[in-house]
Amino acid sequence: MSSDSTKLWGGRFTQPTDSGVEQFSASVSFDWRLYRHDIAGSIAHARMLNGIGILSDAEFDAIHAGLKRILAEIEAGEFEWSNQLEDVHMNIEKRLTDDIGEAGKKLHTARSRNDQVATDLRLYTRDALDRMVDQLKAFQLTLIDLAEKEADTIMPGYTHLQIAQPITLGHHLMAWFEMLDRDRQRFRDARARINLSPLGAAALAGTSFPIDREATADELAFDGVMRNSLDAVSDRDFALEFAAHAALVMVHLARIGEELVLWTSDGWRFVNLADGFTTGSSIMPQKKNPDVAELVRGKSARAIGNLNTLLVLMKAQPLAYNRDNQEDKEALFDSIDTVTASVTIMHAMIQNMQPNRERMREAASGGFSTATDLADYLVTQNVPFRDAHAVVGEIVRSCIDSNRTLESLGAAELKGFHAALDEKAQHVLKPEGSVAVRNHIGGTAPQQVRRAVIEARQRLS
Amino acid sequence: MSSDSTKLWGGRFTQPTDSGVEQFSASVSFDWRLYRHDIAGSIAHARMLNGIGILSDAEFDAIHAGLKRILAEIEAGEFEWSNQLEDVHMNIEKRLTDDIGEAGKKLHTARSRNDQVATDLRLYTRDALDRMVDQLKAFQLTLIDLAEKEADTIMPGYTHLQIAQPITLGHHLMAWFEMLDRDRQRFRDARARINLSPLGAAALAGTSFPIDREATADELAFDGVMRNSLDAVSDRDFALEFAAHAALVMVHLARIGEELVLWTSDGWRFVNLADGFTTGSSIMPQKKNPDVAELVRGKSARAIGNLNTLLVLMKAQPLAYNRDNQEDKEALFDSIDTVTASVTIMHAMIQNMQPNRERMREAASGGFSTATDLADYLVTQNVPFRDAHAVVGEIVRSCIDSNRTLESLGAAELKGFHAALDEKAQHVLKPEGSVAVRNHIGGTAPQQVRRAVIEARQRLS
Amino acid sequence: MSSDSTKLWGGRFTQPTDSGVEQFSASVSFDWRLYRHDIAGSIAHARMLNGIGILSDAEFDAIHAGLKRILAEIEAGEFEWSNQLEDVHMNIEKRLTDDIGEAGKKLHTARSRNDQVATDLRLYTRDALDRMVDQLKAFQLTLIDLAEKEADTIMPGYTHLQIAQPITLGHHLMAWFEMLDRDRQRFRDARARINLSPLGAAALAGTSFPIDREATADELAFDGVMRNSLDAVSDRDFALEFAAHAALVMVHLARIGEELVLWTSDGWRFVNLADGFTTGSSIMPQKKNPDVAELVRGKSARAIGNLNTLLVLMKAQPLAYNRDNQEDKEALFDSIDTVTASVTIMHAMIQNMQPNRERMREAASGGFSTATDLADYLVTQNVPFRDAHAVVGEIVRSCIDSNRTLESLGAAELKGFHAALDEKAQHVLKPEGSVAVRNHIGGTAPQQVRRAVIEARQRLS
Amino acid sequence: MSSDSTKLWGGRFTQPTDSGVEQFSASVSFDWRLYRHDIAGSIAHARMLNGIGILSDAEFDAIHAGLKRILAEIEAGEFEWSNQLEDVHMNIEKRLTDDIGEAGKKLHTARSRNDQVATDLRLYTRDALDRMVDQLKAFQLTLIDLAEKEADTIMPGYTHLQIAQPITLGHHLMAWFEMLDRDRQRFRDARARINLSPLGAAALAGTSFPIDREATADELAFDGVMRNSLDAVSDRDFALEFAAHAALVMVHLARIGEELVLWTSDGWRFVNLADGFTTGSSIMPQKKNPDVAELVRGKSARAIGNLNTLLVLMKAQPLAYNRDNQEDKEALFDSIDTVTASVTIMHAMIQNMQPNRERMREAASGGFSTATDLADYLVTQNVPFRDAHAVVGEIVRSCIDSNRTLESLGAAELKGFHAALDEKAQHVLKPEGSVAVRNHIGGTAPQQVRRAVIEARQRLS
Repeated sequence: MSSDSTKLWGGRFTQPTDSGVEQFSASVSFDWRLYRHDIAGSIAHARMLNGIGILSDAEFDAIHAGLKRILAEIEAGEFEWSNQLEDVHMNIEKRLTDDIGEAGKKLHTARSRNDQVATDLRLYTRDALDRMVDQLKAFQLTLIDLAEKEADTIMPGYTHLQIAQPITLGHHLMAWFEMLDRDRQRFRDARARINLSPLGAAALAGTSFPIDREATADELAFDGVMRNSLDAVSDRDFALEFAAHAALVMVHLARIGEELVLWTSDGWRFVNLADGFTTGSSIMPQKKNPDVAELVRGKSARAIGNLNTLLVLMKAQPLAYNRDNQEDKEALFDSIDTVTASVTIMHAMIQNMQPNRERMREAASGGFSTATDLADYLVTQNVPFRDAHAVVGEIVRSCIDSNRTLESLGAAELKGFHAALDEKAQHVLKPEGSVAVRNHIGGTAPQQVRRAVIEARQRLS
Repeated sequence: MSSDSTKLWGGRFTQPTDSGVEQFSASVSFDWRLYRHDIAGSIAHARMLNGIGILSDAEFDAIHAGLKRILAEIEAGEFEWSNQLEDVHMNIEKRLTDDIGEAGKKLHTARSRNDQVATDLRLYTRDALDRMVDQLKAFQLTLIDLAEKEADTIMPGYTHLQIAQPITLGHHLMAWFEMLDRDRQRFRDARARINLSPLGAAALAGTSFPIDREATADELAFDGVMRNSLDAVSDRDFALEFAAHAALVMVHLARIGEELVLWTSDGWRFVNLADGFTTGSSIMPQKKNPDVAELVRGKSARAIGNLNTLLVLMKAQPLAYNRDNQEDKEALFDSIDTVTASVTIMHAMIQNMQPNRERMREAASGGFSTATDLADYLVTQNVPFRDAHAVVGEIVRSCIDSNRTLESLGAAELKGFHAALDEKAQHVLKPEGSVAVRNHIGGTAPQQVRRAVIEARQRLS
Repeated sequence: MSSDSTKLWGGRFTQPTDSGVEQFSASVSFDWRLYRHDIAGSIAHARMLNGIGILSDAEFDAIHAGLKRILAEIEAGEFEWSNQLEDVHMNIEKRLTDDIGEAGKKLHTARSRNDQVATDLRLYTRDALDRMVDQLKAFQLTLIDLAEKEADTIMPGYTHLQIAQPITLGHHLMAWFEMLDRDRQRFRDARARINLSPLGAAALAGTSFPIDREATADELAFDGVMRNSLDAVSDRDFALEFAAHAALVMVHLARIGEELVLWTSDGWRFVNLADGFTTGSSIMPQKKNPDVAELVRGKSARAIGNLNTLLVLMKAQPLAYNRDNQEDKEALFDSIDTVTASVTIMHAMIQNMQPNRERMREAASGGFSTATDLADYLVTQNVPFRDAHAVVGEIVRSCIDSNRTLESLGAAELKGFHAALDEKAQHVLKPEGSVAVRNHIGGTAPQQVRRAVIEARQRLS
Repeated sequence: MSSDSTKLWGGRFTQPTDSGVEQFSASVSFDWRLYRHDIAGSIAHARMLNGIGILSDAEFDAIHAGLKRILAEIEAGEFEWSNQLEDVHMNIEKRLTDDIGEAGKKLHTARSRNDQVATDLRLYTRDALDRMVDQLKAFQLTLIDLAEKEADTIMPGYTHLQIAQPITLGHHLMAWFEMLDRDRQRFRDARARINLSPLGAAALAGTSFPIDREATADELAFDGVMRNSLDAVSDRDFALEFAAHAALVMVHLARIGEELVLWTSDGWRFVNLADGFTTGSSIMPQKKNPDVAELVRGKSARAIGNLNTLLVLMKAQPLAYNRDNQEDKEALFDSIDTVTASVTIMHAMIQNMQPNRERMREAASGGFSTATDLADYLVTQNVPFRDAHAVVGEIVRSCIDSNRTLESLGAAELKGFHAALDEKAQHVLKPEGSVAVRNHIGGTAPQQVRRAVIEARQRLS
């Protein structure tokens, strides 16, 4: 009888799997990563089978001990993964059966790879999510500390990459904090949907055995069980949701990365990155490049690509399980790796960067950055804002034509543009004054930055 | 003096805007949609300016009344939108000033288009989100009702589009319910991040006026204020988050759509769609096509594309505001429109479809759908599952060779394959028995479907 | 008998189309754009039907004249498009039949909307492609002229946004030329695949009438006929190919846009954009923002999104035609509009920008931009390049520590670092010398830029 | 002196690279793949340096021999790659210098990693492209052979997954041929843009040495040199173009994959896949799943994702080189691997599949597939097509109501619907007749399929 003896599902087949197909379809080269969660899931499943009388105590003990041995083997790097055995699940089950015999063949009772892989992947993603939440929090704490330190540091704020108004570096850093805070919230919210147990859904319809799904869910620290077996094996929302939130983290890091590239560039020099976080050129001896910031910016592309891949993958798949879903893992794993490494390295780089306070202060006084303050001053003198805007626009144009700054205008000159521009008007043209008066919740005033720092620390604790 | 007189920001310029640029950069052709929220935001802002003494009571009243008149004009279709005035904000402000004079010029005090548009867009998205949550809930209630009605309806369950095991139609419909339930949760979670007020952030740094941001936030029913002005004007996470959740809804609808296309196709005929939800062919007189299901499937592509557009748009933008962000609107609006229309039409179509119970029952008995039950039966006779699987695999192969069904095998024949296959084994080969024994939480048994229906109704109430 | 009387395919139906479905599925709100090509295709088809005897001369004349009248009506804005009639094809056919009676009903003989829409869309895309090739060429000619003018203009070249080596502005502009030249080539190559006639494929299988496909292809200026009817109605590669090439153009324009945003920013000021190509701020009177460059950069996102939409749309569709394909149009049209408008506006903006030659020259002498030249000089003195690189690296570090430039180092100081650094070494530290010696094909030397200008003009003619 | 001694660019730095940064930024784990092309490029570069007198004959010989030894080491699996040395280039250069001493340090003269990696990657992509063109051609030849064999095999043609008209399997296979033929053409066209040499562009501006770029281009079998050094190091169009064409191949394979999944599903059974190209279920003993077709369909998602990644990566990068570009490789490599493996496996699977001609013929007579022929018959009897369509629509509706087929209608019954439906009308209702009359170029008639087969063979030769 010529069935495919290596395959655990080969009974119905008369020809062996084509070797090209074996290589093309094997997933063990990437899904081996799930081994810890696969083994934890199998132990929980076996314990439950024991509880409902399908496995004897002796059988459960043999399975339990066998799986622990396999775990140790894998972690010691001694396990031999085989493409022929397709995936992490079959590799481990086969090894178990080779090791402990008959009892091993009973492990897959009341289970299918469909619910098994969904269980493994949810556990794996949950762990990644928990780590990510911790990492984001640690990064945020660093930003808070830096913001406190730089609460009074003046720098130019930009819109359209043109100098807009003076701000404080502490305020800018707290903007980064806010971006990451939403990221943290999103992951936290997603946890409730990720942390549900598909185990017991079997192939798609549940199983004919009187299983106890809540028992396995509890052992695996799931918050509950998925309520529909078809959905349990076909759903990959949890992977998509992680990938979407990771893409957004990466978009945020890419924005920060872009700013660091600008801030270290020759026209700016707002910060110095530590040597250890930059690299040189193979040809140009003078170069000190912000490679890490650029790489993180570049890696946002793959996070966006991975999310896209997962959405395209799931689009229009009929229920319940299709082999397409095997393709969910590499994109998800890559997003997990990318966002984990990128948050870590950006956090470290920012912890080690040095602001050039003088350079920033100097830049803040360029670009007519306090023109809005002058217009606002006119408003306090009862000039409607639109008219005030027009008057100051003309003053700026006149300064450009004569190559002067606003601060250089004397009291008389100012008055020449508008009668309401009395001597006090000159006072609002200093960056320090400009930031100090933006003293409402969310404003850039040093006092507000310190207030935001306190509020942010509370949010994280 | 040759300043650009039509522009409200023209003071500093010596040449008018190029007419090609005007057309290229104007956004009013799509952002006019925000008029209701823009006007609501302006009224709240004006009331606050009045509260802090920047606007007199008379000025506020004039602004309030003027904006109400403009709202009425717009809703009556009598407002003339002008590309030259760039966007919804400037169109309305200019009209107000033309109407009420000086007071109108004061409205923009302590505000910038940067915080204004962020406010408008958040309010617009919040409304869309609330409608979407309601729509999803209504669709879910329909699915629950249908599932209850079809709790006993047998149909084949598929994996790999091959018949896998018998399931019930009610169970299948509840899988759809679960998909939509996650969608509903995601939108609900996103609301907390969308519904925060950026108003008062002004251009990027806050304003020199002593504004009361909580007052405007309250009037506009925001849950609170954004804590950082730079973040408030640069953040578009809320649009991305809506677009991501919308893309996932569309992926789900595309899966349902794919199933409806299959279920109405000639090899299946599991359901009949109402004539009103299908269309014919311009050339083939016999055609009745499931166009709506196909269109929804196709529209998932644009929802994925829109999400991608928004991610790509935001990637690597330095803070605070850049004109790139104008491009956020069309993609977001299109996602809102697409998901809204698609949920509505799919809901209606499914409400009007007729299941062909006989066709489904007939199909469920094909494809050796109860082979797993036979293997499970062997397990109850103490055959390890892996061995049981192999035995049944051979029985199936033998049936295929002789063109027979499992049900047609006599007791003696079954025993010939394995001694443990006694006469009771034949009983498990009926689809009705197969579904009935999958009677654990999440299983396809009619009893479980009814239980799930009750639980689902509770979840929604 | 209650058939759906307005639909031209209603014979088989007993209930009218649901009004929600009508609105959801109608495409005329966007496919009306195809009217010119639809009418041209219908005339060609009718003439061919006349040629093979299916239409009499009188019938053809009536159809021909009727369609010409409809064309005139549409172009005069007098045609009433109806959602109930679904699409541009049915709107025109119905109008024709209302106008000329029986002959109109014969027009759709041997044709289906499936081949009709494919024909229309190919003709439309071909025209857009031809315009795009012309536009790119015009833009390239402008770049060539500018490059010639700025062949000697020194500016810093960047890698990692750090100053790398001096280059010439003419050379930089010719890099843009090369990017656009590949774009132009790609469109030209795509034409051969776009410009094939699907007409005659009918619904999917061809038709039972003895049609002459080459006749219609000739009349419509197609290069030939598509060789397989199934493929002819299911293929949308031509739309994808256009969208892919458009996305790449937009990526290029986004790169140029990014550079213009940098070049106009306060730390750089390398160019001045004309007032007419910038805009101001509603709140900050001093602002002159490079909005056009930012918008083009932002619009690259939608071009990438559209391409993605089209790929996702086509993925996994079974042959031949599915309604999903209706979704091909808006994404394609948007890509056509976006790339057309963006190329036009960037071309105009660059034609009107003013380089600040002094600012660029000044910047080029910063950042140790000639350090590589110094290392190269050592190589000419028989120091291996790797050692030369290390020596110059140390010189740079020493300069940074003492806040000096390379040019300021005296002959003795240089010699102190390496004996081979004799007095000639100082000569290579000037930007003018640095660019002049890069005098090989593709190098930045003014002489090479002039050579490239000549070669480029030849390529375009 | 504390410079970073392991880095070849460390002269200017006072602190070593952070170990986290080293791991984060090293590319050798994936760019080692380029080793053959890197070595070929270095040899060509060295030979050219020798030609212009920068390397002596002895130095060139040492470099040449050393690089050959390294190539052998790598291919024997004996080369030790080091993350500390960052990338494939530095790993090989360092090994060379360790091996041959001083001469090795001269290799990098007149070159930068920027032009080096662009050269390597272009050579690598060119080879992948050439293989892909060959693979597509081989697949196409198989399709031609199959099409010839199945030129007379009747099957139903579908639109909207509803039976539309009878077609021939040969015709359907030739539609696949056409899809792949466009793919082949696109790759062929892209070659001209890929196969240009960037070598000599150095960092960005060219080099001060009198290099001979045409010599290295010739040795590496490039068609010519890139004409602008900035463009040469910043351009990744060639990767994007390959990825775009690969995505389109995968979309086509996903369409074919979807059809195979349908064709092997229970409602269809149009083809049998060989056992070796299917897999079973871990739980359901009867399953024989079309996993390969599903996986290919799923893998189209990653090809689309990779293209997206590359577009997003390049968007808005200022010239010339930024480290973001390091991210180009994994996406490109993955697209190359994916499309290569998928074309291979689909080709093999289709070569080994068996059509079920009886099942297809049976299905082709369902779904009123010849209704169009009946309408066409009426047209030949001088009934306008629109009226004919309506008449046949009613006949179909009547058949559905009475559960009959068109073929079962007697002559009298037919005449009852329309006087022109005389006895000959019955003849057009057979699928064989229906396909035979679609006998024009591109039609489904067996005669046309045979003609297409001949034409296709000519196209490929």
